Amino acid sequence: MLTGQWIVTYLIMAELIGNLLVAQSGGPTSVINASVAGVIQEAGKHGCIEEIYGGLNGILGILNEELIDLNDEKAKAVEGLKFTPGPALGTCRYKVDFKKKPEQAAKDMDRLFEVFAAHNIRYFFYTGGNDSQDTTNHIHAEAVKRNYELRAIGVPKTIDNDLPHTDHCPGYGSVIKYCAATVMEIALDVGGMATDDGSCCIIEVMGRSAGWIAAGSVLAKRQPSDAPHIILMPEIAFNEAAFLAKVKETVAANKFCIVVVGEGLKNTAGEEIGADKNRLDAFGHPVLSGAADRLAEIVQGKLNTKTRTVKLGYAQRAAAHYASLTDANEAAMCGEAAVRAAIDGRSGFMVKIVRSSSSPYKSTTGLQDLNDIANVEHFLPRDWVTEDGFLPNEKFVEYARPLIEGEVRPPTEGGLPKYVILERSRVEKTLPARS
Amino acid sequence: MLTGQWIVTYLIMAELIGNLLVAQSGGPTSVINASVAGVIQEAGKHGCIEEIYGGLNGILGILNEELIDLNDEKAKAVEGLKFTPGPALGTCRYKVDFKKKPEQAAKDMDRLFEVFAAHNIRYFFYTGGNDSQDTTNHIHAEAVKRNYELRAIGVPKTIDNDLPHTDHCPGYGSVIKYCAATVMEIALDVGGMATDDGSCCIIEVMGRSAGWIAAGSVLAKRQPSDAPHIILMPEIAFNEAAFLAKVKETVAANKFCIVVVGEGLKNTAGEEIGADKNRLDAFGHPVLSGAADRLAEIVQGKLNTKTRTVKLGYAQRAAAHYASLTDANEAAMCGEAAVRAAIDGRSGFMVKIVRSSSSPYKSTTGLQDLNDIANVEHFLPRDWVTEDGFLPNEKFVEYARPLIEGEVRPPTEGGLPKYVILERSRVEKTLPARS
Repeated sequence: MLTGQWIVTYLIMAELIGNLLVAQSGGPTSVINASVAGVIQEAGKHGCIEEIYGGLNGILGILNEELIDLNDEKAKAVEGLKFTPGPALGTCRYKVDFKKKPEQAAKDMDRLFEVFAAHNIRYFFYTGGNDSQDTTNHIHAEAVKRNYELRAIGVPKTIDNDLPHTDHCPGYGSVIKYCAATVMEIALDVGGMATDDGSCCIIEVMGRSAGWIAAGSVLAKRQPSDAPHIILMPEIAFNEAAFLAKVKETVAANKFCIVVVGEGLKNTAGEEIGADKNRLDAFGHPVLSGAADRLAEIVQGKLNTKTRTVKLGYAQRAAAHYASLTDANEAAMCGEAAVRAAIDGRSGFMVKIVRSSSSPYKSTTGLQDLNDIANVEHFLPRDWVTEDGFLPNEKFVEYARPLIEGEVRPPTEGGLPKYVILERSRVEKTLPARS
Repeated sequence: MLTGQWIVTYLIMAELIGNLLVAQSGGPTSVINASVAGVIQEAGKHGCIEEIYGGLNGILGILNEELIDLNDEKAKAVEGLKFTPGPALGTCRYKVDFKKKPEQAAKDMDRLFEVFAAHNIRYFFYTGGNDSQDTTNHIHAEAVKRNYELRAIGVPKTIDNDLPHTDHCPGYGSVIKYCAATVMEIALDVGGMATDDGSCCIIEVMGRSAGWIAAGSVLAKRQPSDAPHIILMPEIAFNEAAFLAKVKETVAANKFCIVVVGEGLKNTAGEEIGADKNRLDAFGHPVLSGAADRLAEIVQGKLNTKTRTVKLGYAQRAAAHYASLTDANEAAMCGEAAVRAAIDGRSGFMVKIVRSSSSPYKSTTGLQDLNDIANVEHFLPRDWVTEDGFLPNEKFVEYARPLIEGEVRPPTEGGLPKYVILERSRVEKTLPARS
């Protein structure tokens, strides 16, 4: 009886009671909110989690003590997050950068832990890509250093699919499903318009350094002659002569040619062919916008083939009206797994997706030490691409095909998707403004 | 009894027995094939129509005697045309141009009627926009002149929505449904990313001279602060100072600004702001591609606000995965009505859509003399746009809202739409090749 009493006491002691804070970071995806829904719904099952807060605009909002009470949201709104694109909590590109700005980073950390302490935050979940996982890792390390009891878990999220150790990233299946459907549709349009003169259409998709998104459009191909006919990935240096020969050959065979290009395509000197070097984003990367337009100039100029461009831009990462159900379910699953890991006492990990079988496709989640993740980019393996470098091969197709299965069907109102907007009821600030 | 016998004989005599030819022309839409399905399905009900042929690549293919036998297609494939984008029969930009090339046009007409006679074509249906209706009108007039018994009816089809006399054009509802959904999604993405610096996203949509497509994106707006915040239509001369003031005001209020621009936006001198004057299309119009990029330069340069562009291009007119069911049904209805009109002895008309009620929305079809249609462009009325010219007003919204109702749900296979490809069984050529 005494022994039993001791065990119960121990279990209660081991349970970390406190509040939860979830926030989103970096470029959104179509299913970014499904992970937040997963966090909220799983957290609701655990008594040790008292309040469920959201940080507005990621770390930036948390530094400004801008928190919202997610327990105040209607259950239906939380469920609706599973089909609502864009970051429902807001996101940011702000990075706690210990390498480039150590003083600011140290100051930021002090402030973050002030906010955590003021609101008794004991569970912290951050959805994002490489930079955001790095931030989560720093927060975990700081908590250990400061002896502040916190469970910090990263939740993967990036259309770029470039996080290591996870089979793939939530957001990726949806972006390639939309891009592949778009390529299929454009091919029916352009192919049906093509007469003897021939024509070319170049579709630019996102992907600064990894070609995962461009590669994914290959799923539109059902027959060898189907579009896309050429896929240009940033991992493979652009060879103009070989490219022009391939376009010419394709137009001769089909009367049209559909090219998909990742925005970050580079020449043999490693320079981005569509970069405007005078514009930099918040992380100091050059702003890319012109790969398709540059290629169109080349095709039009050298082959005299009528060429048009499509730049999907933000549309591709927000197209929840044609998101992958597999992707949305996995995004939610990652959020749930993050909460369960934290409840189990883990901190300093990222949830990863583990593929247990490709056919039939089955996946589960695992955990990876954040030290293995942060700032490591995962590129398309060279042996997943044909020898001439113009298309991913069957290894890639086997990998990618299951990720686009199933359709998310957002409810509609007046012929348009009825997406959820959160109430965002503010948590009262208790600290002086950030200095 | 004798009288009865005479009536039956008369009816048989009045009935024009022969073959049907349907073809598609100009830029495709998401529902272009629904009209062809309507023609085929309605024609199948009438014994006087013997063979149902399709002309490959519009007039161009007919001149080359490239016909396919649509009776050979499976009923399921014909039904599948209702959700398949791109021109299933192929289309062309070729115009029988009596004004600019009268000799070639006369030669073309001789050849067309040779082909019609060789295949006993007595019913001719041509889906298209202004130029195609002009061609149909010429064919009708030539038939009368040549005393060749033919019923030629135009079927409206254009995303541009610029045909006169019809309430709207098949293809329009789908393109604005897709564009509005895309604007809504991009707004959730960009709005969620917007921090104090502010940002701007400029979405370029089609529309060479009419702003109907750009205007249609206003349906994404549910609240006054919702995107799109500014819509630039080619009918209204671009005023840079007023535009910049509006962007600045919007960013100050919302931290972000979504602009939709029709590709043919013009300055006060009537010059297209994004035109590359060195490139001309088959009709001699300048090729437009840069309105959004040009605006982005202006916003970035003058306001120093981070600006990104999206160019939907061909994707918008092929996005059958999110087509309007109202639009698809009306497109089919127009094809059916064309056949019924021809059976009734009419020729030289275009089918038009007549709105009988806006709320609840009800439409039917009518006929308009092709002389009233050809080469007349229908622009957005000025009093359907707000005084400052930056948004369509409630008159437009009342007009456009019903057109996007309902979702076409193409079947899927492997996570992507399963569109129909016709068998295209060729009709044997009987004539010498076109000289």
